[in-house]
Amino acid sequence: MKKLTVAFQGELGAYSELAAREFFHADVEVAPRPVFEAVFRAVETGQCQRGIIPIENSLAGSIHQNYDLLLKHRLHIVGEIKLRIVHTLIVNPGVRPGDIRNIYSHPQALAQCDRFIRSLKRVKAVPVYDTAGAVKMIKEENIRDGAAIASAQAAADYSLKVLKSGIESDHRNYTRFLILSRKKAPRSLHARTTVVFATRNVAGALFKSLSVFALRDINLLKIESRPIQGRPWEYFFYLDFEGHADDPPCRKALDHLREIATSLRILGSYEKGREADGRVHKR
Amino acid sequence: MKKLTVAFQGELGAYSELAAREFFHADVEVAPRPVFEAVFRAVETGQCQRGIIPIENSLAGSIHQNYDLLLKHRLHIVGEIKLRIVHTLIVNPGVRPGDIRNIYSHPQALAQCDRFIRSLKRVKAVPVYDTAGAVKMIKEENIRDGAAIASAQAAADYSLKVLKSGIESDHRNYTRFLILSRKKAPRSLHARTTVVFATRNVAGALFKSLSVFALRDINLLKIESRPIQGRPWEYFFYLDFEGHADDPPCRKALDHLREIATSLRILGSYEKGREADGRVHKR
Repeated sequence: MKKLTVAFQGELGAYSELAAREFFHADVEVAPRPVFEAVFRAVETGQCQRGIIPIENSLAGSIHQNYDLLLKHRLHIVGEIKLRIVHTLIVNPGVRPGDIRNIYSHPQALAQCDRFIRSLKRVKAVPVYDTAGAVKMIKEENIRDGAAIASAQAAADYSLKVLKSGIESDHRNYTRFLILSRKKAPRSLHARTTVVFATRNVAGALFKSLSVFALRDINLLKIESRPIQGRPWEYFFYLDFEGHADDPPCRKALDHLREIATSLRILGSYEKGREADGRVHKR
Repeated sequence: MKKLTVAFQGELGAYSELAAREFFHADVEVAPRPVFEAVFRAVETGQCQRGIIPIENSLAGSIHQNYDLLLKHRLHIVGEIKLRIVHTLIVNPGVRPGDIRNIYSHPQALAQCDRFIRSLKRVKAVPVYDTAGAVKMIKEENIRDGAAIASAQAAADYSLKVLKSGIESDHRNYTRFLILSRKKAPRSLHARTTVVFATRNVAGALFKSLSVFALRDINLLKIESRPIQGRPWEYFFYLDFEGHADDPPCRKALDHLREIATSLRILGSYEKGREADGRVHKR
């Protein structure tokens, strides 16, 4: 059987790739893309059967760009996985801790390891576009006075050395990823649904929108607001709730929401994701 | 009478400075700071009497870092102003449109002018940390093959030339700024209140929290969620509503919210801000 191809943003060894391998149990081809928009396009055009995108981190919050892209593109959310983010300090072979003057990584990874970085002396944090990209860079430029922060997978992929693992300040550091497809997911038992809607700009509109779920004892998991382009101070609301859009109470709640909302789109119903630790996979 | 001193993030000519001058009717000393955290600290320590921070843009959405800083620091929101963002293309004297190969600005300003930039031929957008900082840079390095995107004020401050004004793709482009102080604002007539709260992680908790306002016909203006550090998939909610926290219905709603929430803090009640066009001020 031909393996699924999954598009992700970043270089090989990126956390998105680890999440894809955990979700599909390694039984997958991965297709790196430079930006999130290219991940959406790869799935839309059929180049890749699936896409994977980070949607929120338990420390840093939502990745709002991906909420906007979910609205812009006509794909379905078909799954989720929560990956524990374990950052490692990576160097070229032979580089010792005392040699390090610069530490390269994505600004968010640098921020998540700030306690560790501050514990080192005379070391500067240098932001780059991507965690795995930082590893690639220190390898290609054979940097001897610097290190990168990325996944252990990225160190393995570029045959570099892990000096220290688990250098993040808070170990309860998870990123939730969504799986995208052109087709809806098959019906699942423990489902979560994501919808996006807008309301008239009137008193109580948001409250009424949420009441359609509360009146049916449907548990809300997350609410996120994003500005509506060209309508200053009006918002799209992204709502996650427990249950499948085809379950009778959820279906009735969504029918009810259509009476209140000026627009409503179901972005997907999908099996609730497990929490996973990323392991290093052989290529 | 001694003028108020207001801290803002960025270089002279930044949109935050324009907003401060509109809010205080130019009758103010401005104090530039390199990062948002330094703005909060300047007010906390009494170095400056007021601070001004952007909190949301009508196209790009909330500035989440400033929501986190409002929680971290013990300041009061005492005012707001909505500034229309008019981007201008700025060059060194003598530089002609055909000479431009690179356009420097903050990534968000570049994105907001993408239609204009794409209309030029063989021109590259180059992100830098700050809009007014881009103007300073092209002046100091006497760049002849590049331009900056920033406010007309920044062009005036550095005695550079505005080649074109209003180059943003969408003219309904406003940024809402908040004014910070160590003391509460005096009671105002047309007030808006911002609070932050957390709830138990139980079904219907958010709905119940919003109901305390709906049951009293209090209009919600904005809701924003941010992750709680160390408690994955739990959130702080930032809520803006119409009215003053000392108005009897609002006071009762907040008392009611305290029964439901695990924490609640009133960040400030302040007079609703007007929409302003930034004008160029003489130094």
